[in-house]
Amino acid sequence: MSRIIGYKLRRAQLAVFQDFIETVQEMEIRPAEFSVLGLIAENPGQKQTDIASALGIKPANLVNLIDGLERRGIAERRKGGTDKRAHSLYLTRHGVEFVGDMIRKWQAHEERMIERLGGPAERDLFLQMLNRIIDDGSAAGE
Amino acid sequence: MSRIIGYKLRRAQLAVFQDFIETVQEMEIRPAEFSVLGLIAENPGQKQTDIASALGIKPANLVNLIDGLERRGIAERRKGGTDKRAHSLYLTRHGVEFVGDMIRKWQAHEERMIERLGGPAERDLFLQMLNRIIDDGSAAGE
Repeated sequence: MSRIIGYKLRRAQLAVFQDFIETVQEMEIRPAEFSVLGLIAENPGQKQTDIASALGIKPANLVNLIDGLERRGIAERRKGGTDKRAHSLYLTRHGVEFVGDMIRKWQAHEERMIERLGGPAERDLFLQMLNRIIDDGSAAGE
Repeated sequence: MSRIIGYKLRRAQLAVFQDFIETVQEMEIRPAEFSVLGLIAENPGQKQTDIASALGIKPANLVNLIDGLERRGIAERRKGGTDKRAHSLYLTRHGVEFVGDMIRKWQAHEERMIERLGGPAERDLFLQMLNRIIDDGSAAGE
């Protein structure tokens, strides 16, 4: 089993996700909240519906998620008509700090992974190899 | 996103699994059946309960899976007492041929993945890097 690419790849993916999940748990946010906050920070004023479709989350579930972020004073809706799902989303002042902290913790996670690989040069090589595995077809078929 | 290790790792893992799933579908077996047949071929006479615990499958679900393999004449139970789950499992004569074909198709999948990486030397390097990602803690902490 230890020489099977798919098996090892799956174990490595789970190891990285495990570290990521521990990182976001430490911030008391779930992975979906992490992604939503990252998108709002990148593009303040985005519509909930756009964020839902970007992340493949059901709009109704995103409404609940945003309710939670509003209660914690991290994000806020601003009116976008009668439809609650069409409201624009912004970080609060506290949210900007919170997301800054979140990004730093996430970067520490990424640094841990780079360290495991051996350094930035090995990370670059590793990403190249992952790209080769992802880009199937044309090149491999020649 | 394209530089994030966890994101790329997940996409690569899905790409390899996708190819694997297409390979086993071609043989008209599901991934769980693939694993069960591999274990029986390696250790003829194993108990169902041992196979269930090795693969993390519920014994009751394995009973159904084995029923299916028996109907297709690929595997067979031999009496191991009154408990159906304690029966020993063997491949039939046809099953030995079937599993041989299955292993050849699976090897072709593995070869495709090695080809995508660039060859056996690159595969070895890739497995090394995956091992570094999996083995966290002690080594990285020094």
